[in-house]
Amino acid sequence: MNEFELIQRHFTRPAANAVLGVGDDAAIVRPTPGHDLHVSVDMLVEGRHFFADVEPRALGHKTLAVNLSDIAAMGATPRWAVLSLALPQVDEHWASEFAAGFFGLAEAHGVSVIGGDTTRGPLTLSVTIFGEAPAGQALRRDAAQVGDDVWVSGELGLAALAVRQRLRGDAALPPEVLAVCRRKLDYPTPRVALGQRLLDVAHAAIDVSDGLMADLGHILERSGVAAEVWLESLPTLPWMAENRGRLADSIAAGGDDYELCFTAPSSARAELQGLAEELDCTLTRIGRIVAGQGSRLLDAAGQPVTLQRGGFDHFA
Amino acid sequence: MNEFELIQRHFTRPAANAVLGVGDDAAIVRPTPGHDLHVSVDMLVEGRHFFADVEPRALGHKTLAVNLSDIAAMGATPRWAVLSLALPQVDEHWASEFAAGFFGLAEAHGVSVIGGDTTRGPLTLSVTIFGEAPAGQALRRDAAQVGDDVWVSGELGLAALAVRQRLRGDAALPPEVLAVCRRKLDYPTPRVALGQRLLDVAHAAIDVSDGLMADLGHILERSGVAAEVWLESLPTLPWMAENRGRLADSIAAGGDDYELCFTAPSSARAELQGLAEELDCTLTRIGRIVAGQGSRLLDAAGQPVTLQRGGFDHFA
Repeated sequence: MNEFELIQRHFTRPAANAVLGVGDDAAIVRPTPGHDLHVSVDMLVEGRHFFADVEPRALGHKTLAVNLSDIAAMGATPRWAVLSLALPQVDEHWASEFAAGFFGLAEAHGVSVIGGDTTRGPLTLSVTIFGEAPAGQALRRDAAQVGDDVWVSGELGLAALAVRQRLRGDAALPPEVLAVCRRKLDYPTPRVALGQRLLDVAHAAIDVSDGLMADLGHILERSGVAAEVWLESLPTLPWMAENRGRLADSIAAGGDDYELCFTAPSSARAELQGLAEELDCTLTRIGRIVAGQGSRLLDAAGQPVTLQRGGFDHFA
Repeated sequence: MNEFELIQRHFTRPAANAVLGVGDDAAIVRPTPGHDLHVSVDMLVEGRHFFADVEPRALGHKTLAVNLSDIAAMGATPRWAVLSLALPQVDEHWASEFAAGFFGLAEAHGVSVIGGDTTRGPLTLSVTIFGEAPAGQALRRDAAQVGDDVWVSGELGLAALAVRQRLRGDAALPPEVLAVCRRKLDYPTPRVALGQRLLDVAHAAIDVSDGLMADLGHILERSGVAAEVWLESLPTLPWMAENRGRLADSIAAGGDDYELCFTAPSSARAELQGLAEELDCTLTRIGRIVAGQGSRLLDAAGQPVTLQRGGFDHFA
């Protein structure tokens, strides 16, 4: 057994939902009859998607979280994942911490890690995740309708502010705000339960990974509609809300939020507020779908706000 | 649209077998009722799994081929694949050539590419592949039985010899032999049709990627049996067979063969010879499963042969 096989052992655990787990040419799982299989892949590269000095436990958590967020945005139930990773050197401490973060989140969501590949190379992580939803049901990007409300979960801009502080500094940022923002950057919470519950309520959905306006733009483009979004309504931390003007970029276009942005008919407002309370997850109505193309971000006076950036590029 | 989105376009093609292809948070496919889903992942890193100057078309072919080979070794039918790639720079020529190799092989096997992720980073390729087989049927590694014959498809050692010539030179190697070996290294043929047909005939199977003896070893370990293998019987090129003694390492332990090694009851010999003719794919009986642990490679006199290496490490 070589050093990499030792490391691989950290990632080989019994797969509860599998017919055959790690250790053969392929893993075998049995899809639920009458369900569609939802598949997504995300690759994370050091220096582009995370800082080189990130805690390995946080990196493990986030590597799975960003993938769970994609499944959540479909309204599907996550079931299985495979992980491939290239490591520059063998570091058992790093591997055990990364695995603790990755499997901790996997177990919390009942996701079985059914396969993987470990090799030497520049630090690169790729996860393919599988979810299931009843056949024909999904929160697709192309289903927004004129007249829909636009909603977003949780709070926006926290992770982007943490990155901005790290890269450029911001003396005015209170330490307790920074701590909350860093936590959001390192340990995002994928909105899995919310996505599943939205399957019967929402029309279109996407997860906010590249910034609210950029990701909402994908819904608009694929649905052939436009949207207006109210800057004053965007949910964020109280301190950030007080500085909403100068932090508009982080809040509306910062990225790394891993919240769900979705559209729903106005008749669903009461149901969605009830769902927010039930799930203990803030849901905020931030705009509406209109006819046309593209999006307009409006200030309190109804005037268009121009952002300096269009979406995720903070590591570029 | 940025440069990477342009590149990504090369990899976004209509997905015939999908409910929803590339372009949403996840792709959606509909598994075949009554079938199990087989899942495998392989990551390829420059300098470790391929030379930096490999033709991009060959690299695209091989990136998918090594994954198809895993599905073949399960006896499953490949259906879908997702591809994540990190690229050091944007090179449209490279991308179009890589895509030609990758999609050419995908289309030949009816495999839909349903998702992907492209990012900047050191050249790294990761494919997750999905196959299907009737529920409960699979060529697992743990199913070899004492008394089984050991078989291998195609010819062994060609790719390893091409790598060895590249790294160390070999003045005695005829150019026409080298050309065949290089072709095998760059454009391996995954034994997909063979694997499917073996589902009803063979007991255990594995694909030969790390070298025959190392991969057969996985079957033996998981099945709790031993094997003897006859060096004189190992199929290879005529020129290599003439130099079998000095090329034993490449033939029996060279790796990168992507042939299938499998075990089958002796009662299946005639059926397997018929299958070889039908598929135009050489099948050679190379040994037998016996009680015990581990494997013994024997020469023509029945004496044990000691190899200098245990398996894949030629890029290490």
